Amino acid sequence: MDRVQIAVVGAGTAGPELASLAEEVGKLLAERGATLVCGGLGGVMEAAARGAREAGGTTIGILPGESRTDANPWIEHAVATGIGHARNLAVAASAEAVIAVGGEWGTASEIALARKLGRPVVLVGPAPAIEGVSSRSRRCK
Amino acid sequence: MDRVQIAVVGAGTAGPELASLAEEVGKLLAERGATLVCGGLGGVMEAAARGAREAGGTTIGILPGESRTDANPWIEHAVATGIGHARNLAVAASAEAVIAVGGEWGTASEIALARKLGRPVVLVGPAPAIEGVSSRSRRCK
Amino acid sequence: MDRVQIAVVGAGTAGPELASLAEEVGKLLAERGATLVCGGLGGVMEAAARGAREAGGTTIGILPGESRTDANPWIEHAVATGIGHARNLAVAASAEAVIAVGGEWGTASEIALARKLGRPVVLVGPAPAIEGVSSRSRRCK
Amino acid sequence: MDRVQIAVVGAGTAGPELASLAEEVGKLLAERGATLVCGGLGGVMEAAARGAREAGGTTIGILPGESRTDANPWIEHAVATGIGHARNLAVAASAEAVIAVGGEWGTASEIALARKLGRPVVLVGPAPAIEGVSSRSRRCK
Repeated sequence: MDRVQIAVVGAGTAGPELASLAEEVGKLLAERGATLVCGGLGGVMEAAARGAREAGGTTIGILPGESRTDANPWIEHAVATGIGHARNLAVAASAEAVIAVGGEWGTASEIALARKLGRPVVLVGPAPAIEGVSSRSRRCK
Repeated sequence: MDRVQIAVVGAGTAGPELASLAEEVGKLLAERGATLVCGGLGGVMEAAARGAREAGGTTIGILPGESRTDANPWIEHAVATGIGHARNLAVAASAEAVIAVGGEWGTASEIALARKLGRPVVLVGPAPAIEGVSSRSRRCK
Repeated sequence: MDRVQIAVVGAGTAGPELASLAEEVGKLLAERGATLVCGGLGGVMEAAARGAREAGGTTIGILPGESRTDANPWIEHAVATGIGHARNLAVAASAEAVIAVGGEWGTASEIALARKLGRPVVLVGPAPAIEGVSSRSRRCK
Repeated sequence: MDRVQIAVVGAGTAGPELASLAEEVGKLLAERGATLVCGGLGGVMEAAARGAREAGGTTIGILPGESRTDANPWIEHAVATGIGHARNLAVAASAEAVIAVGGEWGTASEIALARKLGRPVVLVGPAPAIEGVSSRSRRCK
């Protein structure tokens, strides 16, 4: 445990704007010497990991499935948990703080579990696009 | 699987008002022939289970620990998962729908996981009392 | 928690002899008033649950997937854990004792986890048919 | 995923002989460029991680608890799963192969889960010292 570990969480698919934001977050974490922890798959997870690796950082992917080969190509150390969405707990628990870049219900569960464990959480980018919740409500937060 | 299973989620401690509400929810579910699923511990979980059992219903408690003895006295069938907060996924997945009675971060994670799995979620009672979020923000929802 | 809970573990496929043995175990447990806990799927799990239900007993299935519909038709109360093979821990933890009827590697993991938790384990039927271990070695046990 | 990941599993306490053996295994893995995966705690896990780090290797600890601070001092990247003994599945799934150095019931569960997932398993050192199983039986294997 030579370094601080920070989790970046967000949706498994990301448009160019969100991906660019996630990549920037990953880059900044790497430049500050933090290890990036994420869920290891695509979208925000992949963009953040790419940003970190291209800046010389270290990345850990905590996967839902039973095989390391599910990891995106920017994951340096892949943990295959085999426990599905329950791996969201491991993502939150393995970080000193959690940064959410956009996100949907899966991201919301990671934020809630992180707070349950007392980890600080920072939201960046657009409010989570949660199906069935109107943008008006979301703007209130 | 003779019956519909409905989860009631909420905080592990509950004042008299919230407990009374949870008990009523449990009672109504039992009267309609649904099996109550919950996290098996105290507070809202216990009050809902009491309401269900006193109305002749069946209750299943899905516990975080490794021992069935952690269950509240109104749990008829206790499953000790041994996986800590990750059991929140099992609570959500084991129900056709989830009813949240108040709640805090743990409840928020169950709501998010239930939505991730496509389960309908109903919130009753006061908005979740989430530490660090002002009541003004909460009222917006 | 009105009754003792006993787990029956074994392979997800079973020939007639093993199925008959598992069914008998389920029947005997039900006749003694124990609730049967199992992994909820086919083979030994299904045969044991059938034996228990046909004798008027109660059955709990603790499933690896995210949907209760995976349960065999003899499961009365299904818990969908969503955590894959890690649900083997929940099967072991939810029982006062574990009875293994034949079995393969999955069963072996349940036996080991049950012993780790201090639960008594009884093996009935043929020694586990473990691929890559010769029958000579198995006969030694 | 720049490197092969190999898991070393074994008991959380280890006498000098077993610790020396585990350390040697860790050292040899590091010298061949493999990343060491283990359960992150003491005994065999710590000795193997020490051997790997002292030989310039990389170590990943997959912990049962919710805090990275449980990791032994030789763990470079710690994943806190929060899922208790169910993390044994993640240890097995995260490795291309598993090497067991001695061990007890927890180790036996990791071996069984690894085989369930099709991972090759190698046993080194003394047969597992399993309480309640006579040494005569163990010698048979």
